[in-house]
Amino acid sequence: MSTLWKSRYSLRATEVKSSAIRELLRVSGKPGMISFAGGLPAPEVFPVERFKEACEKVLREHSALALQYGATEGCEVLRAMIARHMARYGIQAHVDNVLITSGSQQALDLIGKLFINSGDRVLVEAPTYLGALQAFSVYGAQYLSVPVDADGLRTELLEDTLRLGPKFMYVLPNFQNPAGVTLSEGRREQLILLADKYGIPVIEDDPYGQLRYEGKHIAPLVVLDRQNMRRDDDFSFGNVIYLSTFSKTLAPGLRLGWIVAPTEVIGKLTQLKQGADLHTSTFTQLMAYEVARGGFLDHHVRQIRKVYRERRDVMLQALAEFFPSEVTWTRPKGGLFLWISLPQGMDSQSLFRSALAENVAFVPGDSFYAIKDRESNRHLRLNFSYCSPAQIREGIRRLSVAVKSQLLQVDVQPV
Amino acid sequence: MSTLWKSRYSLRATEVKSSAIRELLRVSGKPGMISFAGGLPAPEVFPVERFKEACEKVLREHSALALQYGATEGCEVLRAMIARHMARYGIQAHVDNVLITSGSQQALDLIGKLFINSGDRVLVEAPTYLGALQAFSVYGAQYLSVPVDADGLRTELLEDTLRLGPKFMYVLPNFQNPAGVTLSEGRREQLILLADKYGIPVIEDDPYGQLRYEGKHIAPLVVLDRQNMRRDDDFSFGNVIYLSTFSKTLAPGLRLGWIVAPTEVIGKLTQLKQGADLHTSTFTQLMAYEVARGGFLDHHVRQIRKVYRERRDVMLQALAEFFPSEVTWTRPKGGLFLWISLPQGMDSQSLFRSALAENVAFVPGDSFYAIKDRESNRHLRLNFSYCSPAQIREGIRRLSVAVKSQLLQVDVQPV
Repeated sequence: MSTLWKSRYSLRATEVKSSAIRELLRVSGKPGMISFAGGLPAPEVFPVERFKEACEKVLREHSALALQYGATEGCEVLRAMIARHMARYGIQAHVDNVLITSGSQQALDLIGKLFINSGDRVLVEAPTYLGALQAFSVYGAQYLSVPVDADGLRTELLEDTLRLGPKFMYVLPNFQNPAGVTLSEGRREQLILLADKYGIPVIEDDPYGQLRYEGKHIAPLVVLDRQNMRRDDDFSFGNVIYLSTFSKTLAPGLRLGWIVAPTEVIGKLTQLKQGADLHTSTFTQLMAYEVARGGFLDHHVRQIRKVYRERRDVMLQALAEFFPSEVTWTRPKGGLFLWISLPQGMDSQSLFRSALAENVAFVPGDSFYAIKDRESNRHLRLNFSYCSPAQIREGIRRLSVAVKSQLLQVDVQPV
Repeated sequence: MSTLWKSRYSLRATEVKSSAIRELLRVSGKPGMISFAGGLPAPEVFPVERFKEACEKVLREHSALALQYGATEGCEVLRAMIARHMARYGIQAHVDNVLITSGSQQALDLIGKLFINSGDRVLVEAPTYLGALQAFSVYGAQYLSVPVDADGLRTELLEDTLRLGPKFMYVLPNFQNPAGVTLSEGRREQLILLADKYGIPVIEDDPYGQLRYEGKHIAPLVVLDRQNMRRDDDFSFGNVIYLSTFSKTLAPGLRLGWIVAPTEVIGKLTQLKQGADLHTSTFTQLMAYEVARGGFLDHHVRQIRKVYRERRDVMLQALAEFFPSEVTWTRPKGGLFLWISLPQGMDSQSLFRSALAENVAFVPGDSFYAIKDRESNRHLRLNFSYCSPAQIREGIRRLSVAVKSQLLQVDVQPV
């Protein structure tokens, strides 16, 4: 092509590389492939009949609203419903604390736009959500990272990193993407105290919080922060911005997420959103409202939990049955993913190629590390929500074949 | 609130001010107000029955696709339809040259992200679309501007400005927002030759191109550019990126726009879009496809033209009848807006306050100037698509009262 355009790319654009996942998903779409690579909900759980009724109602009663331009903040009925819904999880937000976004991904983009100057440091978990790294990197973020273990972010290592002065920290406390681990209650309290001590704001990303398959709900960081501030009556004081989405509970195709933040921050994010896409589709917002209302969302989430809990159990069982003892994995209490660690000497990229030959796909773990080292190549992310139980069992069997063949080729160290 | 957040805003965020229009729209929403302020389509022309059928079909036949995550580029059927549709306007794009965006506003944001480093200069029309200024300014754009007259951008003034080396120029050739003027054929050719001579890329924004009420279709810049390059067989060579949208022909509530560009630019924009919102709603994309297919879009556009042509005529007639001779206005051949110029000494901000007292609203023209001077205060933008013919006539009468009362207070110079 003419080099005219290329020569005019911004620095920002040249920093962005094609996402590894994007390429993988392309490869893993071929017929016969069992893919654990995507983060896709099971289409069987989409409440299609409820969507039909909602659609019909929106177009019958509110077409002039649903098809027209709308407010940048989002439709008031939907924001109010979200506020009410979150109150039941202890998050006392008012309508003015809620901004509707075009999926959670847009929330991450707007937060990057609002806070990150080129060269600013952002503290993330190792590993962390790839989409957040994409969203922040475009604004020139540099990273600090703190590892996770089975109880989530290792808060005992946090203080030294906070002293380096990150602009904010980005955390996924529930059933983290990619590792599937959950931040324990004790660590949540410690994180909030440290955030307060060093004055470092927290972005709490919680797309999976409602999808808990066992154990007790743990209060989100945004709630603990308010209790720590002794200002749980006023949302405007606090160190935590909270993000969530309908993508995992209703349908990702709607592209609906939300940000909960102090009103002044919401005001600034709204200005940025106006320049970014004016507003999120009024049509999908009203649809989501009609689908979710009257207690349907809670009812539906209970159905999803049943389906995904079974799939998780099938995957865990198959792993125990087929995988060699040198390989370990996390045991997620909710969400969509689990995380496999290979013994030293093995590498997830080579395993990926062997796995494709066996017609099974996953995402190699190194994509999820802001700062890559030798260790980041020893992991893989498996999704358990999308495939049927039978496919999951067969897929894990195939993957075990690839793992065993790779194991034979390396000089395995004890884990 | 806690100053924690404020102290961490990026430079980018502090540059963005609340849009004047946003505030105005809030004021102008009160009961009894006749508003010419918004850029809203008439809700009476939304094809609601067709939407109902489309919705029903999408959920019956394609729910697993419509509700699921989709490709960042957009749904292939929709991109292919857009390519076919544009071919009839002479734009020979392939599917791979089309990227679906969350409204045209996202196209502007992604273009800003792709091309603008802080301090880069962008050449715009004076006046120009406010949303483009918002989208570009967040990336630190500086502006060069060239005035428009009744035949659009004054290309005889263009060469001197191109010599200053803008990163690109941003032009709305058809029924420009806000001035309602159209770039003549001769000037289009001149613009393309100059763009080629100085190697300055062109962003052609064409949201209203199909809404022509009189006169002959004029070839878009992207077509003339290809003819000039003598490479009309290959879209990858060319200096023009073309933007359009379904917001004015189907419904803005869908938030669906598109970008036509060389494949390598589309690839880069796709990467940036992935970080910005993963993809545009698959649900609204499939809806738009089902609504528009089988020739319905063309049929529907003919209906819209009839309705808006009448409203434009009523507004022009009322202006001629009620307005004093010191005031002039453009005579748009299409689109949604006309542009009023006040005599020297008058100012649109004071007129705005008098107009609100008469229960009629508009947008003062200075918001549309990248570089404001004394002249930028002498204009107002009126929308003629949203109000009914009777409201238009009454609104112009009210506005004429405000104009005449302001006229009495100033020492009017001949225009």
